[in-house]
Parts: sequence; structure tokens; C-alpha cells
Amino acid sequence: MRVGILISGRGSNMVSIAEACASPGFPASVGVVISDSPVAAGLDRAASMGLSTAVVEPGEHADRTAFERKLSEILSAHDCELVCLAGFMRILTSEFLADFPGRVLNIHPSLLPSFPGLDVQRKAIEHGVRFSGCTVHFVTAEMDAGPIVLQAAVPVESGDDPSILAARILEQEHRIYPEAVRLMAEGRLQIEGRAVQISP
Amino acid sequence: MRVGILISGRGSNMVSIAEACASPGFPASVGVVISDSPVAAGLDRAASMGLSTAVVEPGEHADRTAFERKLSEILSAHDCELVCLAGFMRILTSEFLADFPGRVLNIHPSLLPSFPGLDVQRKAIEHGVRFSGCTVHFVTAEMDAGPIVLQAAVPVESGDDPSILAARILEQEHRIYPEAVRLMAEGRLQIEGRAVQISP
Repeated sequence: MRVGILISGRGSNMVSIAEACASPGFPASVGVVISDSPVAAGLDRAASMGLSTAVVEPGEHADRTAFERKLSEILSAHDCELVCLAGFMRILTSEFLADFPGRVLNIHPSLLPSFPGLDVQRKAIEHGVRFSGCTVHFVTAEMDAGPIVLQAAVPVESGDDPSILAARILEQEHRIYPEAVRLMAEGRLQIEGRAVQISP
Repeated sequence: MRVGILISGRGSNMVSIAEACASPGFPASVGVVISDSPVAAGLDRAASMGLSTAVVEPGEHADRTAFERKLSEILSAHDCELVCLAGFMRILTSEFLADFPGRVLNIHPSLLPSFPGLDVQRKAIEHGVRFSGCTVHFVTAEMDAGPIVLQAAVPVESGDDPSILAARILEQEHRIYPEAVRLMAEGRLQIEGRAVQISP
């Protein structure tokens, strides 16, 4: 299964997926890495790993529909059957999602349904939770609310600031996102209701 | 520190707190166990552990204020400085809470702020989360929303039903609730904003 990865920044999750894809026997490969910004550090990292890259800037398209159509075209041109959002800072419309039904994944740095949205490590610390974590989920039109594929939990320690907590969570992101891609490529994920069953 | 424990049912968390209190060097003791129902199985368990028990039935009081005043009187008569809700199936008003400011704890079988309210194991399974757990928190007028003292995380396994998940969580409840009582009795909990700091 070929995977298209959408980034906006340094793309550390993109790298973790690409490294997994490069390991022997992994059932997926990276088709293309697309950034919505030409200065995303992840573009260089992708290129240095020998991956195809593309830049699709919203400002260079008439509207969101045209922007998303371009994304979709490039993903299809690279035969991508799975789309992984990896720090991609844009909401995708249901129009785009319809091009990849049940085939768009995202990772979010909290134990959803706690703390959707932005700045979540700060929210978690201010809320005083003792555990946070990360969630790989299917993307739906509602932000951070799609069916959950995998999660990892980490402790929130006394004295944590958002960046320390973010680093602890990121370690787990780099573990579960490639694992979710593997499960997807192996055809082992079934959405039932709003839960995801993993077949053995 | 003397602890009053409020129950409505079998009171398994009451037993775990009472057992901890009975262990050498534990900085708290049970003052009284109060049930809002005369048929709560926990009453017999408390009595068999040699604890004082009382029954305060809402139906035998003119209104909620009178009911809560009676609870408060009994707790004070037993010199209780800390109130632990242990499966107590009633919402306490801010009038009652004012009698024990910052001294009422509850335990909830989810990783709050996910899944407040009732029937939470079913909600967690239907939502498809991979981790759930339990939360000891200070009680405020808003249900299941007070500052978090301790949490424990447990995996949600494929094939779990609500009762299997509840049993896995309950094991952790019996661990963290006594620990929260200990921290409270040792004066190590400070509420800052909506988070709780634990001093060493």
C-alpha cells in the first residue's frame, strides 16, 4: 500500500512512517510527501530520504476546493491509497475525504476524546491530568473526533511544561503511527460504530 | 485524620480505604461509613470490619438541604475532616461542600475529563478508546469536574465488555483511592488553578 504523507512543519511523524516503510517486510511504502508550505523543514528531510516531495500552497489556488483537488491529484498520481496527516495544519473538507473514504489517518497528541484542538499539552497540564498520550484516528469532517485506531498513554510528571510533555508524547507518536499504518496496510482495521476493531 | 466514607452500594472502595487505614502507620482512620440506603451491602462489610455505620435516607428528610445537613452532622459528630465518596450515587450541593471545603474526594471510573457521568465503561468501549482508567478528584458543584488528585490508566482490550473493563479499572481504584487519602492526610495536596500539586 502506498502512503501519501501531508506535513506543514518538521515532519517528525513523517520520518517515523518513512523509516518504518523502509524496513524489510513492511507492508507499505511512501508514495509522496506533500507540504502546504515551501519552507517546511520536513521537505528536506523527505528529500534526503529519497522520497518524492511536492508543495501545494493554499495561496496559489483559487479556493479551498481547488487546493484540495490539487492535493488529491498529486496523491492519486503517486498511487496513494492511504493518506497520513503528520502535523498538517489544515482542516480537510468532506469533499477531499470522499476521495479517500476511510483512508485518511491523523495523529493527535492527547488521549482523545480528552483535549481535542490545539495547544493540547498546555491544556492537559493546566487541567491537572496525571496521564496524557497520543491517538491515531481516522479523519472525519469533525476535528479530532474520528474512530480511534491506536493510542498510547504517558504519565504527566510534576514539573512538566508543555514542551517536556510534548517530547514524551512524541516518542510514543513515533511508535504508534507506523504501527497504525502497518495495520491499515494489512487490512486489519474495521470501523464498527465509532470504534475500530483490529483483526488478529 | 478521620475519614467519613459515603456509600450507596457494595462499597468496595470503602473497604480498600478502610483496609489501608487499618494498616500500621497509615495517617488516617475511618470515622464513620454512611449509606443513603439501608440495604447497601457495604454497611454489613463496614460493620464486620468494626467500623461505625449510619444510614441517612433522603426519603426520611423534608428536602435535600435537610438530608445533607444530617450527613454533615453525623460526619462532624465523628470528627471527620475528610469525606470520601465511594460509589455514593447522589450529587452533593455546594451547601454541603461548604461544610468540608477542599475536603471531599470522589473516585470516577474513567480518565477524566473523558467520560464523565454514568455508564462510563460502556461509553469508553463504544467510543473505541484504547485506554481508560480511574480518577480520584476533589468534588466541586460541577459533576466529575473537580481538580484531579490521582489517576491510573488501564488498557481497553479487544473483546472487553463493560463489566470486564469495570473489573480491570476497579483494581486500580482500590490502589489509588487509599493513596489519595494518604496524600491528603499527610497534607501534601495543594490545589493550584484547577490542577493539584503533590508536594514531596
